[in-house]
Amino acid sequence: MRRPRLGHIQFLNCLPLYYGLVKNDVLLDVDLVQAAPRDLATMLLSGELDIAPIPSIEYARHAEEFVLLPDIAISSNGEVQSILLLSKEPVEGLDSKTVALTDTSRTSQVLARILLARHWGVSPSYAEMPPDLASMMRDADAALLIGDDALRAYWQQSDLLKYDLGAEWTTWTGLPMVYAVWAVRREFAEQQPEAVANVSDALTASLAYCRTNLDAISEYAARWESFPVAYFRSYFDALQFRFEPQYREGLTRYLTEASAIGELDVVPDISIFGA
Amino acid sequence: MRRPRLGHIQFLNCLPLYYGLVKNDVLLDVDLVQAAPRDLATMLLSGELDIAPIPSIEYARHAEEFVLLPDIAISSNGEVQSILLLSKEPVEGLDSKTVALTDTSRTSQVLARILLARHWGVSPSYAEMPPDLASMMRDADAALLIGDDALRAYWQQSDLLKYDLGAEWTTWTGLPMVYAVWAVRREFAEQQPEAVANVSDALTASLAYCRTNLDAISEYAARWESFPVAYFRSYFDALQFRFEPQYREGLTRYLTEASAIGELDVVPDISIFGA
Repeated sequence: MRRPRLGHIQFLNCLPLYYGLVKNDVLLDVDLVQAAPRDLATMLLSGELDIAPIPSIEYARHAEEFVLLPDIAISSNGEVQSILLLSKEPVEGLDSKTVALTDTSRTSQVLARILLARHWGVSPSYAEMPPDLASMMRDADAALLIGDDALRAYWQQSDLLKYDLGAEWTTWTGLPMVYAVWAVRREFAEQQPEAVANVSDALTASLAYCRTNLDAISEYAARWESFPVAYFRSYFDALQFRFEPQYREGLTRYLTEASAIGELDVVPDISIFGA
Repeated sequence: MRRPRLGHIQFLNCLPLYYGLVKNDVLLDVDLVQAAPRDLATMLLSGELDIAPIPSIEYARHAEEFVLLPDIAISSNGEVQSILLLSKEPVEGLDSKTVALTDTSRTSQVLARILLARHWGVSPSYAEMPPDLASMMRDADAALLIGDDALRAYWQQSDLLKYDLGAEWTTWTGLPMVYAVWAVRREFAEQQPEAVANVSDALTASLAYCRTNLDAISEYAARWESFPVAYFRSYFDALQFRFEPQYREGLTRYLTEASAIGELDVVPDISIFGA
């Protein structure tokens, strides 16, 4: 028997979890492989990984191959800070204007398209491009940014209007938003259910640890990353790692809306490990 | 400032160190990249890593690019167990016979060639091949194995004669043998000496931890790897991670002998970080 191969997202949003994994010695019992979310999905599909956090939209496209861990996701219930639409004018006026979409996240692109089409009722044209705000705003009237770029914009003074897409989603639907889920290869879950349960427990314990140590984690993050402690504290407060039933409902709603605007063929049934 | 990128050897020999790194929370302050030793050398040369354990012979070929951490190496002073020459007859009779060399380790290949030529005074022909003992012994009269394959052979009953190349080296030279060194890109050491000192201290602390916890580490290893606890205990006792002056002398002697048999162009001066 070998150690389960667990993927880890190498972005700021998973830094609190990483801190919990290290402090709880989880890395002795899993092989941790760090990569970008889309690459993790590819590695999970090819069998290079057993369990990994993958973008909600990637999960939906291959749902029959996976079961999901029950107690963890990357989610928000209101503000998320790291997924922003920046606009030269109120979004309701973007009809037939151009919106630049960062080419770094499919799940966020689809979220922006959903909100613009269904919540705000406008039909802009879209242009996918690298996440450089200056050049995005030269070519377009609004721009979707995520991650570090979004956090920077969130805290910066600007003439642009800022829409936090986590907050907008929850205002519109009354539901949380789920950006990524921890997927297990169905075959691995069937063959080694005990190993999956162990990893699930270890992740849950690490999350509990990180929830009670957000100050220390924010200071740690500020030591190695380019934002002050207070920004991290605020961001890590906004980020939820929850996946209880209301969050699963939020995921299904997101996938249903994605399907309604033609960004997803089929809304899958969600299989939860152990359920 | 970003976290130093530290390479880690993904083999059994570095498992005790990994245990120490996890238990000491070192993985919060470095980006650990696990790979095979030769790949680590390539990544260090290309600037993808800042500090990494690399094979002694790879170090010697690019010594001007590196400084070495002062207090850590993979070394033995006597038996090593994981580098074995298995032979159908006493090695002194291998003249003009064929010796199969595993294609997985240059440093061990050179060590075998040195001992055969200079210690035992024989001139066999050599054939590099994958580490499969049965097919090696079909095509050759002796075979060099390393790592798991060697450890398995070390403990197995066999009609073959077994030569532990760590023990043979020390019997012959009176010196320790150094298989791998922790190399720092010279440029990184000059630009961020404090970061290098921190990593060096963290590794030293992790080694101290692992020396006092060899029983727990052996039990941990046996949980995930294919050998019983007692084998690991014996192996981790044989393995030294030392690099004090007598070990550096052993390294220089090894490189001098490698040069004498034509396996190395120049014996480099060894630059130690902070010296």
